[in-house]
Amino acid sequence: MTTTSARKAEQSLAALLAPDILDLLETEPGTVAAETEDLHPADLADVAEALPRSQIPVLLAALPSDRAAAVLEYFADELRGELLEEMSAQQAATLVAAMTPDDRADTLEGIDEERAEEIVDALPAETRRQTEQLLQYPPDSAGGLMTTDVVSVPESYTVEEALRRVREIARSGRREAMNTLYALNVDGALSGVLSLRELLAAPEGARIADVAWPEVRRVSVTADREEVARLIAEYDLVAIPVVDDRERILGVATVDDVIDVIEKEQTEDVQKLGGVEAFEEPYMQMGIVAMIRKRAGWLAILIVLQMFTTSVMQGFDSELTRLPVLLLFIPLVMSGGGNSGSQATSLVTRAMALNQVHLADWWRVALRELPTGLALGVILGAIGAARVGLAQAGFDAGWTLGDGQVGYNYEENGTPWELVATNVFLALTAIVTFGSMAGSMLPFVLKRLGFDPASASAPFVATLVDVTGLLIYFTLSILVLGRFMS
Amino acid sequence: MTTTSARKAEQSLAALLAPDILDLLETEPGTVAAETEDLHPADLADVAEALPRSQIPVLLAALPSDRAAAVLEYFADELRGELLEEMSAQQAATLVAAMTPDDRADTLEGIDEERAEEIVDALPAETRRQTEQLLQYPPDSAGGLMTTDVVSVPESYTVEEALRRVREIARSGRREAMNTLYALNVDGALSGVLSLRELLAAPEGARIADVAWPEVRRVSVTADREEVARLIAEYDLVAIPVVDDRERILGVATVDDVIDVIEKEQTEDVQKLGGVEAFEEPYMQMGIVAMIRKRAGWLAILIVLQMFTTSVMQGFDSELTRLPVLLLFIPLVMSGGGNSGSQATSLVTRAMALNQVHLADWWRVALRELPTGLALGVILGAIGAARVGLAQAGFDAGWTLGDGQVGYNYEENGTPWELVATNVFLALTAIVTFGSMAGSMLPFVLKRLGFDPASASAPFVATLVDVTGLLIYFTLSILVLGRFMS
Repeated sequence: MTTTSARKAEQSLAALLAPDILDLLETEPGTVAAETEDLHPADLADVAEALPRSQIPVLLAALPSDRAAAVLEYFADELRGELLEEMSAQQAATLVAAMTPDDRADTLEGIDEERAEEIVDALPAETRRQTEQLLQYPPDSAGGLMTTDVVSVPESYTVEEALRRVREIARSGRREAMNTLYALNVDGALSGVLSLRELLAAPEGARIADVAWPEVRRVSVTADREEVARLIAEYDLVAIPVVDDRERILGVATVDDVIDVIEKEQTEDVQKLGGVEAFEEPYMQMGIVAMIRKRAGWLAILIVLQMFTTSVMQGFDSELTRLPVLLLFIPLVMSGGGNSGSQATSLVTRAMALNQVHLADWWRVALRELPTGLALGVILGAIGAARVGLAQAGFDAGWTLGDGQVGYNYEENGTPWELVATNVFLALTAIVTFGSMAGSMLPFVLKRLGFDPASASAPFVATLVDVTGLLIYFTLSILVLGRFMS
Repeated sequence: MTTTSARKAEQSLAALLAPDILDLLETEPGTVAAETEDLHPADLADVAEALPRSQIPVLLAALPSDRAAAVLEYFADELRGELLEEMSAQQAATLVAAMTPDDRADTLEGIDEERAEEIVDALPAETRRQTEQLLQYPPDSAGGLMTTDVVSVPESYTVEEALRRVREIARSGRREAMNTLYALNVDGALSGVLSLRELLAAPEGARIADVAWPEVRRVSVTADREEVARLIAEYDLVAIPVVDDRERILGVATVDDVIDVIEKEQTEDVQKLGGVEAFEEPYMQMGIVAMIRKRAGWLAILIVLQMFTTSVMQGFDSELTRLPVLLLFIPLVMSGGGNSGSQATSLVTRAMALNQVHLADWWRVALRELPTGLALGVILGAIGAARVGLAQAGFDAGWTLGDGQVGYNYEENGTPWELVATNVFLALTAIVTFGSMAGSMLPFVLKRLGFDPASASAPFVATLVDVTGLLIYFTLSILVLGRFMS
């Protein structure tokens, strides 16, 4: 049912359902909850977003609070924030109280601070305490990611006692998936882990200490969220316990949050690679002014850097005037270097993000990029030189295309074509090699200096290589063609 | 223990442990299994990879086969393939038989075909049948991703009967995490889902049909693996059942495989964005020749496209000769367009990958990019014009830097600086606007034509915009400065 094509049908289903829901809200709001109870909260959120903006709070008010809370969790951050800021603090508190602890904290992090405090103050005492505890951790840390719904038992429990405890908690209706049980030693420190399946398989009468796995992957509450994502991905975990410095369990970070982290980090990396300051909002929901601000910064820096090309051109303008044929290949040699640099940067920053390449590997990468860049340079150089030869051949043979003449007479313009071809070949070889090296080393330099290596954007590398590429091109031109600059 | 710093310690631990393991392998191979039994298979794989290459098979042979299989699953694909190709088909079959069904199929997909067939033939009958079934699905489909270890019960079962069945299966020692139970109706079709926790919380004596959730997210065995990833991420699932066209459950795709899919797809997108043909091997393990092949294709296409700039320069060479001041800004205006185009392409391809933007949204994106590009163009144009004014001011005031004179006298070179500044301003405004539009629309055009929108690489967009940008620049120059071309 939920295959690709069915999914498309479902998306339009949200649009199709919206008018019916709208009708119900006006005529029989009391029936909306029952009519929509079979929908997954993610789908009901889609339907809600397809309603007129003013009807969304009406729909939420028509749902039981735990259901409304679940729907709210699937809204875009911005819309969720707006809705919570519009209602009374008491209404908002009822909704966020019904959320899972980690989503509650994330939601409150995302709205106006003063408003968030009012909502927290209106929460029931125990929920407030728990929420305040979660809010003290930075959103980018393991503490900011974790939920506090976690099932732990003393390791001295028997399997039956543990099962009874799990049943109790499960029947109390907490919502977070709890498929893992953690064992605690007499000091309250984390001492073992057991999946629910293993608990069921354990021999009756056994002690938890005997059947739990003593080697538990864990993460410090202050660890970066990327570290959490890396551990969960590397060890194929569904959840990882988060501990304080005395190894007491504070919560668990679950794989669904980690997927969100991975997608967010990847989006940031792509934005940076494209030369855009990172932002979290979906592209279509970002305001135009905010969007311009995120993009103008890098573009302005790059154009100022790029101005060095103007200085280089001014520096060589007597050579250019004396041998105008040099001009023709300026864009070609510049872009060859920029493109090979963009390739190398994309590959190296991605390998760094995947932890495949570390700072200490810089020389290994350099030893790979040098022959790679040289080979690519020779290939592009040969193509460039062939183009020069072809233009001369076209002129010599008098080829035409439509009305225009095809080809170019280098001889007439003061230089033998063979030398121009040699010059283009050498320049592309040198510049592409340089581009690959510069593009691959820049992320290491940035990392070494304490910046994010992902800031080595394709446009940044292209700009650096443009300036250096022009210098290389003009210097080579003087060596190869200097005697024709009369 | 496994905080960021401890993790670093652990990584060097692999290097530290390797010599000890090497000693043991030579002196008392019989003790290696016991000495390493506390290590997570992922960590033991790290240790193994730090051994001399010839000792890795010796280590594997010293481990029980299920343990060796688990370690093998964490090796890089290439190394795993090599090792399996080196051993006898019988040895290899013993190892892969101990793997989870999905990893077994993936492993066999990754090695020499003839060899894989020999290994499959050497598998026990039931395992062989299961493996052959999995191997028939394309690796990029839900069928290629799924594992066949799945727990299902007739919906007519009572909670107690279901619990007994789960216990049986869990005690039989199958390795895949089974935290979810699927209910089947009388036709054997999927009719409900229940987590192990919910099963435990269910009232005694209840029927599965009454306590299972009837709305089950599912995916067709032929669906694309990206669709599986999208559903698991969107609905925060740990696993999703994979069904045939009669809704019978064939297996489940689990979240750990989905994380791998998300990372692979993302790596491909970054590679394409950087103008590199996608490849799966980690950067450092890719052979140099293969690497050159993956990069040369796009670079060669781009340089041929870029040659149109040479044609444009030839077409305008009389204007260039008559007004050499035009030359100075060629790299500047070209790169402004290329950079803004790279930004727009990165943002739009990422939004498409995240399903935030669809084909039908092209005009909404265009309506955003037009004002954004225009504003960015005005900002960059103002910076460019200021640079022209500053150079003239520097000349007029006789500024110097070291020995050199700073500044440039546009008047002396035949044109008032105000007009040059106007020309640069207009050109950057037009080209940056065009770059943003071209960069944002190209992914839509590619998608409409049936190509992967992610193929709209930053270098590709930059090249397209370079050629058009030069045309725009020269055309504007003739309009603004034509009367000075004497």
